[in-house]
Amino acid sequence: MLEKRLPPIGSRPGTLAIPSDSPAPRIFLLDYSSEHLIENPVEDLEQLAPHVHTENTTWIDIRGMGDEPLLRRVAEMFGIHPVGLEDAANIPQRAKSEIYDAHQIVICRSPLVEDGTLAFPQVCMFIGRGYLMTFQDRSFGFFDPIRDRIRAGIGPIRASGPDYLAYALIDGLVDRYYPVVDGLSEQLDELEDLVLEDPTADHLVQLHRIRRDIAVLRRVGWPQRDTIVDMARSPSPFITEDVRVYLRDTNDHMGQVMGRVDFCREVAVGLMDIYLSSLSHRQNEIMKVLTLMASIFIPLTFIAGIYGMNFEYMPELQRRGAYFVVLSVMTGVAVFMVWLFRRRGWLGRRRRRG
Amino acid sequence: MLEKRLPPIGSRPGTLAIPSDSPAPRIFLLDYSSEHLIENPVEDLEQLAPHVHTENTTWIDIRGMGDEPLLRRVAEMFGIHPVGLEDAANIPQRAKSEIYDAHQIVICRSPLVEDGTLAFPQVCMFIGRGYLMTFQDRSFGFFDPIRDRIRAGIGPIRASGPDYLAYALIDGLVDRYYPVVDGLSEQLDELEDLVLEDPTADHLVQLHRIRRDIAVLRRVGWPQRDTIVDMARSPSPFITEDVRVYLRDTNDHMGQVMGRVDFCREVAVGLMDIYLSSLSHRQNEIMKVLTLMASIFIPLTFIAGIYGMNFEYMPELQRRGAYFVVLSVMTGVAVFMVWLFRRRGWLGRRRRRG
Amino acid sequence: MLEKRLPPIGSRPGTLAIPSDSPAPRIFLLDYSSEHLIENPVEDLEQLAPHVHTENTTWIDIRGMGDEPLLRRVAEMFGIHPVGLEDAANIPQRAKSEIYDAHQIVICRSPLVEDGTLAFPQVCMFIGRGYLMTFQDRSFGFFDPIRDRIRAGIGPIRASGPDYLAYALIDGLVDRYYPVVDGLSEQLDELEDLVLEDPTADHLVQLHRIRRDIAVLRRVGWPQRDTIVDMARSPSPFITEDVRVYLRDTNDHMGQVMGRVDFCREVAVGLMDIYLSSLSHRQNEIMKVLTLMASIFIPLTFIAGIYGMNFEYMPELQRRGAYFVVLSVMTGVAVFMVWLFRRRGWLGRRRRRG
Amino acid sequence: MLEKRLPPIGSRPGTLAIPSDSPAPRIFLLDYSSEHLIENPVEDLEQLAPHVHTENTTWIDIRGMGDEPLLRRVAEMFGIHPVGLEDAANIPQRAKSEIYDAHQIVICRSPLVEDGTLAFPQVCMFIGRGYLMTFQDRSFGFFDPIRDRIRAGIGPIRASGPDYLAYALIDGLVDRYYPVVDGLSEQLDELEDLVLEDPTADHLVQLHRIRRDIAVLRRVGWPQRDTIVDMARSPSPFITEDVRVYLRDTNDHMGQVMGRVDFCREVAVGLMDIYLSSLSHRQNEIMKVLTLMASIFIPLTFIAGIYGMNFEYMPELQRRGAYFVVLSVMTGVAVFMVWLFRRRGWLGRRRRRG
Amino acid sequence: MLEKRLPPIGSRPGTLAIPSDSPAPRIFLLDYSSEHLIENPVEDLEQLAPHVHTENTTWIDIRGMGDEPLLRRVAEMFGIHPVGLEDAANIPQRAKSEIYDAHQIVICRSPLVEDGTLAFPQVCMFIGRGYLMTFQDRSFGFFDPIRDRIRAGIGPIRASGPDYLAYALIDGLVDRYYPVVDGLSEQLDELEDLVLEDPTADHLVQLHRIRRDIAVLRRVGWPQRDTIVDMARSPSPFITEDVRVYLRDTNDHMGQVMGRVDFCREVAVGLMDIYLSSLSHRQNEIMKVLTLMASIFIPLTFIAGIYGMNFEYMPELQRRGAYFVVLSVMTGVAVFMVWLFRRRGWLGRRRRRG
Repeated sequence: MLEKRLPPIGSRPGTLAIPSDSPAPRIFLLDYSSEHLIENPVEDLEQLAPHVHTENTTWIDIRGMGDEPLLRRVAEMFGIHPVGLEDAANIPQRAKSEIYDAHQIVICRSPLVEDGTLAFPQVCMFIGRGYLMTFQDRSFGFFDPIRDRIRAGIGPIRASGPDYLAYALIDGLVDRYYPVVDGLSEQLDELEDLVLEDPTADHLVQLHRIRRDIAVLRRVGWPQRDTIVDMARSPSPFITEDVRVYLRDTNDHMGQVMGRVDFCREVAVGLMDIYLSSLSHRQNEIMKVLTLMASIFIPLTFIAGIYGMNFEYMPELQRRGAYFVVLSVMTGVAVFMVWLFRRRGWLGRRRRRG
Repeated sequence: MLEKRLPPIGSRPGTLAIPSDSPAPRIFLLDYSSEHLIENPVEDLEQLAPHVHTENTTWIDIRGMGDEPLLRRVAEMFGIHPVGLEDAANIPQRAKSEIYDAHQIVICRSPLVEDGTLAFPQVCMFIGRGYLMTFQDRSFGFFDPIRDRIRAGIGPIRASGPDYLAYALIDGLVDRYYPVVDGLSEQLDELEDLVLEDPTADHLVQLHRIRRDIAVLRRVGWPQRDTIVDMARSPSPFITEDVRVYLRDTNDHMGQVMGRVDFCREVAVGLMDIYLSSLSHRQNEIMKVLTLMASIFIPLTFIAGIYGMNFEYMPELQRRGAYFVVLSVMTGVAVFMVWLFRRRGWLGRRRRRG
Repeated sequence: MLEKRLPPIGSRPGTLAIPSDSPAPRIFLLDYSSEHLIENPVEDLEQLAPHVHTENTTWIDIRGMGDEPLLRRVAEMFGIHPVGLEDAANIPQRAKSEIYDAHQIVICRSPLVEDGTLAFPQVCMFIGRGYLMTFQDRSFGFFDPIRDRIRAGIGPIRASGPDYLAYALIDGLVDRYYPVVDGLSEQLDELEDLVLEDPTADHLVQLHRIRRDIAVLRRVGWPQRDTIVDMARSPSPFITEDVRVYLRDTNDHMGQVMGRVDFCREVAVGLMDIYLSSLSHRQNEIMKVLTLMASIFIPLTFIAGIYGMNFEYMPELQRRGAYFVVLSVMTGVAVFMVWLFRRRGWLGRRRRRG
Repeated sequence: MLEKRLPPIGSRPGTLAIPSDSPAPRIFLLDYSSEHLIENPVEDLEQLAPHVHTENTTWIDIRGMGDEPLLRRVAEMFGIHPVGLEDAANIPQRAKSEIYDAHQIVICRSPLVEDGTLAFPQVCMFIGRGYLMTFQDRSFGFFDPIRDRIRAGIGPIRASGPDYLAYALIDGLVDRYYPVVDGLSEQLDELEDLVLEDPTADHLVQLHRIRRDIAVLRRVGWPQRDTIVDMARSPSPFITEDVRVYLRDTNDHMGQVMGRVDFCREVAVGLMDIYLSSLSHRQNEIMKVLTLMASIFIPLTFIAGIYGMNFEYMPELQRRGAYFVVLSVMTGVAVFMVWLFRRRGWLGRRRRRG
Repeated sequence: MLEKRLPPIGSRPGTLAIPSDSPAPRIFLLDYSSEHLIENPVEDLEQLAPHVHTENTTWIDIRGMGDEPLLRRVAEMFGIHPVGLEDAANIPQRAKSEIYDAHQIVICRSPLVEDGTLAFPQVCMFIGRGYLMTFQDRSFGFFDPIRDRIRAGIGPIRASGPDYLAYALIDGLVDRYYPVVDGLSEQLDELEDLVLEDPTADHLVQLHRIRRDIAVLRRVGWPQRDTIVDMARSPSPFITEDVRVYLRDTNDHMGQVMGRVDFCREVAVGLMDIYLSSLSHRQNEIMKVLTLMASIFIPLTFIAGIYGMNFEYMPELQRRGAYFVVLSVMTGVAVFMVWLFRRRGWLGRRRRRG
């Protein structure tokens, strides 16, 4: 189950490796400026034609990959580079940002917890002149808050271009990292208490799962962070300086996320140490009990064994008080043993509930 | 409890995510030059108006975030960039320094031990032309010594601009790292002695707590250090070359702090090794006792068992001295065992108190 | 068997260190443009003469190294630098790309699983003006899909120069990393389940083998990745800007491969921890059983031993119900012990199948 | 005791944080050229006046910090920057080199073993025009060999300026690292033999001490190395190109020192592994003895127990040779057990003295 | 024995720290061009005079350091910088390459296995105009193959200058790393099989030795690699561009060597894990046997003990078949225990030979 989240690619140059179970694309158009807002699902590609090369901001949101000719036609209509289209269709890619002549491609991956497993669906954006085209494998609901903000006209989004829209989407995707990381952190906290209390094999399995999730987060998150740094730092003809200021803010968020992930990782390593130490400690406790019982009773049993021998001439056996003397000696040996163990600190101090 | 020090952010662009329990802002004004000093709490924002754009150095110290409209009005009055105001209000951020057209924003985090837990409150500064504006979640008392120095006119602070004031505040914040790091180092020293003496599960918990504190210090401290390096190295229109010389000094301090933190981390890792080794050693000791007892008495008990059998014809039983012969043999076996154990070095050398 | 995959080099400057068991070279010629395609095996080097310095793209594919004079003659015919020829013949080299006056040499290594062991055969390419010369130790079948594409004229390959051909070959070599890495990942997944179930020494051996394969992949893969980065980034007279765009794509693939390898490595380290912990846990379980048995029965045996003593005066022995009293006491002791162990959590909670 | 070597700083800008137990400064003047040599202790600061701004090389060597006004007056006399003076007085600093308008400040730390503990006293130098001023907390005897060489006029030192003098002092300070590192290396060698022979808790303590010393050396040494690299590489108005050639040599020495320290660290980590393995091995040995004794004698004792039962009808008991048959069976069981253990390799092969 | 390979330096500037046991220098002269070859040992330094400043390539090979005045005279004759001469005489240095006005100094270290220990003798070269001067502590036979090639006139060496000669020597020194690394790799392979079979303390010692050798190789090898990178990349007046192409090849070799060393290191770390796991596994096996024996026989012995009690009224004792009933019960208990252990997987599955 480890890498199944990452289906093998093996993409050959020039061909799209669309997963066979990918749903047919549904295309949503949103064309807006400060003054107007056109929103409708696209049934026929001809509907898109009037929105190519306009002054307004056009957002073409494509969900689903399961129709290669259609994807190629949309790409051609907006002048998307074939290599770029491959990046969009051949999922999953590592996050990246690259500038082509006609557009900038930005690939993002954002965490999504479905059925208790952590996935990182890919979102691909083409920031062009006057339009933003987004590709998703299927609809993950990542973009709904932004869409609502555009409809409501909250903030500067309606008055801004496709670069600000791309920023708003990326910022939303980055924000999705927070609850995931915080969830891991909380799981670690709970696990910590449990392990210190009483380490079981279940805790080990849980800890391993968390560590694997952290490893996945690091693998996916660092390229994501590099992508945003790159967008905020390197000049691009498709992103204005004003939007770059906002991207620096997103960059800080992503940096904070990765700082927390690294912190979780360090805590998880420490927890593993604690688990092992607790096991070792527990074993010591058990060993002590065993040693105590053996050390007290084995000598006593030996003494009893001596007087159980059937020799004809054993002078002690006839003595009247001998039995009680032997019982006293036995008690003495036991008391001495307990005293010895106490002195060594192996008895009487319950450390766990200290 | 791990990440609760860091409440989740999820800040959406364009809105301030002020914690709901944040107290209402209290604003303190300090306007000074070599010749004059005006100091008074601000009840009405109109009081601030005469201090915008003056030749003097104006310090607006805002404590508490619980009134968004008020914060926005102050920000507008001094031309603070909206993204900058978000950085100030949406705590905690990672330490950073960024230059805007009208001001330089510097975010610092300084350690504070409250109720035995380590927190890193955020301080946000805007170094503008003729003013320094500082934001804190609530009053932590970080700035009191500097305020006293301004009042008393000690050193060059009264004759200098807002950049020197910012330096003085940052230097004070960095100085607060020292006692925290030294405290961790002392705890490690104490723990070291205890663990070598007698490792208990409590020590493990303590060590884990220290390691987590060290991890937090590293996570918060490295961005803090990068921020100061950045301020000391990169030219800025808001920080004069003279103040930059002082910041290089602060930079050395912060570098020393982080060097110590890394040192503590290495010692803590070593201590974990010691803990595990001590547990292992302790277990060996216990095992030796068990093995000794078993090896001596189990053969003896067997011998006794032989002569406890009820066979009718057991020639030894009738012999008169046989009992004493058997006792002697038993003693011989015991002595041999002890000798064997001594020769192997498992007995007689108490290593722990060596 | 570890480094046997890498036969010692010790190449002396100016001499080719061809392995003695290397098969005689077989040379395959492919000369093509958009309009024509000539394909034939080369028996006599004179066949190659007309293809030097033509407008078409000529691919000379040499498989096998076992004829030094022949290699030297081919190299001379196309102006290959002697140091370059050494790189081609003295295998294995680390992946690299270097630009000479007359050609660019690119050394690649691609994974190949033969007889269950992982090898990394070397492929050496010389990208010259109008020709691409490839060297392989023997025929590994790496190039067959590309050859088929040229024959079929699929994609832009027939209309492109030797740089695009080199890209197509390299891209195919990189794609071969995916199944190997995914195979390792799957093995890790399986091993994970097995180790958590019941750790055996076999798992340890398997895990060690996987870790070694990961280490080999890292050793071979990182230079490979650097090579592709270098080709995609640094300008070269032998690679056009258009092909460089494609190489950036190959670069992303190789980066993704290495990201997965690093991920596998982290998982493998975690698995080692789990293995050790599981062993430790298992030992604790065994210890508990031993301690339980010993703690219950050793005291009981002692009690039985007491009343097996042969003292003449032992008042209890004559009492009629004494035997049953002793049996009851014994049962009481056993019940008490079990209760004690349960209370400590050492009994009754089977953790493994929880 | 860990960090007590590093008293807390908390230096406030503008004030000198001189330790209260610092001795009163003693000042030694050395004024020399190829032709002359003036050497005398300075009782009155007026003595220094004629040596400011001369053609000769003047070395003002100040030992002790316990008189702030005096330090300030000397600093003023030679134009030392206040921040620089703070660096000199507020010990310990990390090693660094910084260029001011009037001088270059170089802070060095050199190891000193006093009473068995490792300390790193700070030496601060101001390389000015025509003078070198050195500050030490007290007299450590670091400079005596150089002083002797000046007196004797050995080598080019008398004909060179203050930069060469600074180089000679720094070179001497670096040389002091060698015996310390070699000492640690020798301790590790000794410990290695002891741990392999018979691991005790004392070795653990020693190893931990060595690791801590290595950690301190790394913490202090790396900034020292960076300082010398900086001096050897970056041009400075206070250090001539000729002296820079010599500093490159010192740089190589310091690099070699740090290489050795890192090597020691790796060996120490390996030794920790060996310690743990040896403990584990030792435990296995003990366990084997226990298991052997128990496995041989527990079944035998059981057999003896059977025939010690008092059933009235036990047919074997009456048989005449039964006793000897049982003894033979017991011997047989014992021999079988020993054979079994030998076959498993748990007996008879003493591994330690192999 | 650890660092004795590296005698302490403590070289004071201006003096040569020649080891007291260094043999007297023997000087070998080789003067050649394409047309001529003069070769003779140098008894009198005057013999060297005619070879200074000629068009030919002169190789002055000095073996042994034990005559400081002689070394100084040779150095003066060829204009060697005093600091350079120190580098040559004060062994061992880290590998480095530095350019002086009159020559380039290159220090190399090459592995040599003598009496089973790994040493890294230093070779120092001065590449001047028309001459190459090499210094060795004593004759290690490193240069014999090159000398033979010059005599035989094989390859371009006779027609090339001192830079090519230096390259040939360095390439030969790098080649010497291969067998050493391969030897370590083979030792690791053998050890791996042995450890998985049956881990003993001897393996631990061997593994530690190998790890130490790897650590030494890394410490010596990385500077060596940096040196060759530096020579191949940075322009130098003493090394022609043609020779630089060859040095890039040597650089690839050294890179491959270090890649293998790092690989060995990773394998060695993995082997340590395996060793510890195997120990742990072995211990589990032993524990299981102990627990099995104890769990089966201790209850049985208890039952026997009960009926060995001497109570007067024990109804079972008189029953005629009671003895056999008890024997059956005992057999039943034993069978139940074995079944229980089998079900838990602690018995019957020999894992080691699986």
